[in-house]
Amino acid sequence: MRGKAQPRSTKSPPTESVPIQGPVRVALLGCGNVGAAVAELLCARSSEIAARTGVHLELVGVAVADPKKPRVPGLSASLVTADAKALVERSDVDVVVELIGGLDPARTLVTTALEAGKPVVTANKVLIAQAGAQLAEIASANSVDLLYEAAVAGAIPVIRPLRESLAGERVLRVMGIVNGTTNYILTRMTDDGMEYGAALAEAQSLGLAERDPTADVTGEDAAAKAAILAGLAFGSDVLGTTVEREGITGVRALDVAYATRLGYVVKLLAIAELVDNGPDVSVRVHPAMVPSDHPLASVRGPFNAVFVEGESAGELMLYGRGAGGAPTASAVLGDLIDAARNLRAGAHAPAPRRTSTKVRRVEDLRSAFYLSLDVEDRPGVLASVAAAFGAHGVSIRAMEQDGLGAEARLVFLTHVAREGDFHATLEDLRGIDAVTDVGAVLRVIGADDAGATTAGGRAMPVMPTDTRSSR
Amino acid sequence: MRGKAQPRSTKSPPTESVPIQGPVRVALLGCGNVGAAVAELLCARSSEIAARTGVHLELVGVAVADPKKPRVPGLSASLVTADAKALVERSDVDVVVELIGGLDPARTLVTTALEAGKPVVTANKVLIAQAGAQLAEIASANSVDLLYEAAVAGAIPVIRPLRESLAGERVLRVMGIVNGTTNYILTRMTDDGMEYGAALAEAQSLGLAERDPTADVTGEDAAAKAAILAGLAFGSDVLGTTVEREGITGVRALDVAYATRLGYVVKLLAIAELVDNGPDVSVRVHPAMVPSDHPLASVRGPFNAVFVEGESAGELMLYGRGAGGAPTASAVLGDLIDAARNLRAGAHAPAPRRTSTKVRRVEDLRSAFYLSLDVEDRPGVLASVAAAFGAHGVSIRAMEQDGLGAEARLVFLTHVAREGDFHATLEDLRGIDAVTDVGAVLRVIGADDAGATTAGGRAMPVMPTDTRSSR
Repeated sequence: MRGKAQPRSTKSPPTESVPIQGPVRVALLGCGNVGAAVAELLCARSSEIAARTGVHLELVGVAVADPKKPRVPGLSASLVTADAKALVERSDVDVVVELIGGLDPARTLVTTALEAGKPVVTANKVLIAQAGAQLAEIASANSVDLLYEAAVAGAIPVIRPLRESLAGERVLRVMGIVNGTTNYILTRMTDDGMEYGAALAEAQSLGLAERDPTADVTGEDAAAKAAILAGLAFGSDVLGTTVEREGITGVRALDVAYATRLGYVVKLLAIAELVDNGPDVSVRVHPAMVPSDHPLASVRGPFNAVFVEGESAGELMLYGRGAGGAPTASAVLGDLIDAARNLRAGAHAPAPRRTSTKVRRVEDLRSAFYLSLDVEDRPGVLASVAAAFGAHGVSIRAMEQDGLGAEARLVFLTHVAREGDFHATLEDLRGIDAVTDVGAVLRVIGADDAGATTAGGRAMPVMPTDTRSSR
Repeated sequence: MRGKAQPRSTKSPPTESVPIQGPVRVALLGCGNVGAAVAELLCARSSEIAARTGVHLELVGVAVADPKKPRVPGLSASLVTADAKALVERSDVDVVVELIGGLDPARTLVTTALEAGKPVVTANKVLIAQAGAQLAEIASANSVDLLYEAAVAGAIPVIRPLRESLAGERVLRVMGIVNGTTNYILTRMTDDGMEYGAALAEAQSLGLAERDPTADVTGEDAAAKAAILAGLAFGSDVLGTTVEREGITGVRALDVAYATRLGYVVKLLAIAELVDNGPDVSVRVHPAMVPSDHPLASVRGPFNAVFVEGESAGELMLYGRGAGGAPTASAVLGDLIDAARNLRAGAHAPAPRRTSTKVRRVEDLRSAFYLSLDVEDRPGVLASVAAAFGAHGVSIRAMEQDGLGAEARLVFLTHVAREGDFHATLEDLRGIDAVTDVGAVLRVIGADDAGATTAGGRAMPVMPTDTRSSR
């Protein structure tokens, strides 16, 4: 790739008034799954990309931990280095692509690049969720791009639509299925009645879950993405690590089966929304029951989707492959071409607006709930259970009872209640002797207030006719 | 809105080196459904938009056919004029929003604006489908933006993702449900077994179809959008009026019901795809049977969606409201903010690449087909029907027979065949005395070649077990 005959000026860092000419020279930091796919596209497809976009990208260096390890076929060994910092600082590097992941040293390297006036493209969700606001300021101060389309939902265009297409839109809510591992597990539990452990093991054997799946199944990965989405939709300065989250480890096959019978699908959602019409926001991750005719319900297996509700735009959904080398590389390449075009034009993407929004704790939110309880099957139990709900003002919308020998399983759907009140109810239920197990709690999407049931106009399914209501 | 204290220089048309300052002054051409919604957002939300985006948009004029007709509440009568040309030419107009629709006089007005160095935002699909390539050249020559996100699929970000997010992507196929009227009609036929005429009448009574629904139900509207999508995905210079199209007027409730039983949903699709891996393309509109687990199958009622298959990105879908004043206005506003930011920065959006791609006629394409035939129920009929298929090398994948008294209805699914061969088969079938009616023909999505059945890895449903195959 090196040694092309095209003239190249020895140039200072680009400013708004000095558009660069000739090929745009790219440094790649990290060459794992995504990095290798990006390197391959840049090596094999450079002239095709130039013909299609008018932008000639030239890979001039790849920084990796172990330069001896074999990488991409066709990638010249002379491009590979162990010294990422020196590569970033090289005067013949125009743009830096950061694919190392994690907070450090990525943060230092990205800062160095931005301060040298070099745009940065990254797929690093942790970096953006934790340090995005500061890095955006540095980028803005140096009039360069910091682009991270690949950090949320892989190949799906999410960042650019939120930042640009919906720039004039008052966004009300963003709900994302942004973790393919957990969506695969929940899909298997839904379709085939598998238990969580078996579905996880299968996902691991297929390479869809890591050997240590903690970051995925506890919602940590989705929480970082929720923070990024909140920043884009509301300008919120939320750190990924502070996002309240629940994972899917407590979801059982029986809960998923109940959800199906009631007309719902269980999904792990990353949610960022205005509370009480704003300006306060809620940013959180938890499993939820989604009505089966909701667009998010049809997002299956390892696919991702981000559902946006806007005041004027109405409902939007962006769907696709959320992970994998090639899809993520595609998003990186889109950003890279954007950054290169901007460099040439001496322009840069608009800086995302930041506001210090107040984040409401989950405790203060209102939601409808699903709850399963195992109780002793004897007279008076239902009355004491119902009394616990009533004591905290949590109204039961529907109840179903299944016999289990000496025990019974009760499944409740509540009307919309304050989360704190519902948790107080749970506390009381745990104190009732006849309650042998308080099972999974799932929030129900699409029931916006008691009685009214709206989720983009969808009706909440009615319980089966044999259901006895305790109201 | 006028008379603000902010200083404003008397300026010449903006060039790349003279970013404009202060409010960006907007002229609106046309004030119908969408125009009124845009005017309302600009009047009521200007300061909110400025706070959110840093761009202060000021509406300085609205051109309408009849200035006496009441318009938007809060819109000063002094802003309204009947002289669109004079408004476009006014020296205090920075950006022009064209919402008149149709080819002329929109084309002249847009040309005038672009030649004066004023960016144009339009929602006019006919204009872009017929004159988009020339207008893009004029815009490029004058270094200004021509943006048209609202021209395809209303509020759904489609244009920007295709042009920017997927800039590095080799797009293989774009399939869109881009006409809400026909999707509403087909959804009613699917869900409630309604006939086409009744569903159309209902759509008209709900304001979802026009009194003269021709442009929608014949596929004319979708064809314009198919041409625009082909231009974005492949740089094709296809005129909307030359796109081969079939509408939904021949689709009967019984075809839709058969499709459901076979595991499909009938959708009107606008398709732009590479043929035989390119560079030739196919651009067309026709009803098709979509597998019921395909993401497009879940797009119901008046919603729109654009499904994209990319070489690296895999499958993507962009979903939302394809029409209506507020959603379309949201897309216009997104473009307007983009154009205003670019004006300020002295930059403009990348010009879409144009190539003179060869468009393959439908006749040359290969597809699997659904066909229903009414025949006399007597011995030997099936043999002569099967012979007609065989004579043209069209292989039958599955067949189903229903008795209808003295008649029988035969439903066929074929393997993938050349369209021309299938049409020759139809011709022969019409010549068989015992064939009393050759019913609807529907192309089947997701069967890529004989035997193999792939649509992003989805299995084509097998016919019911009581089906007799004539192979």
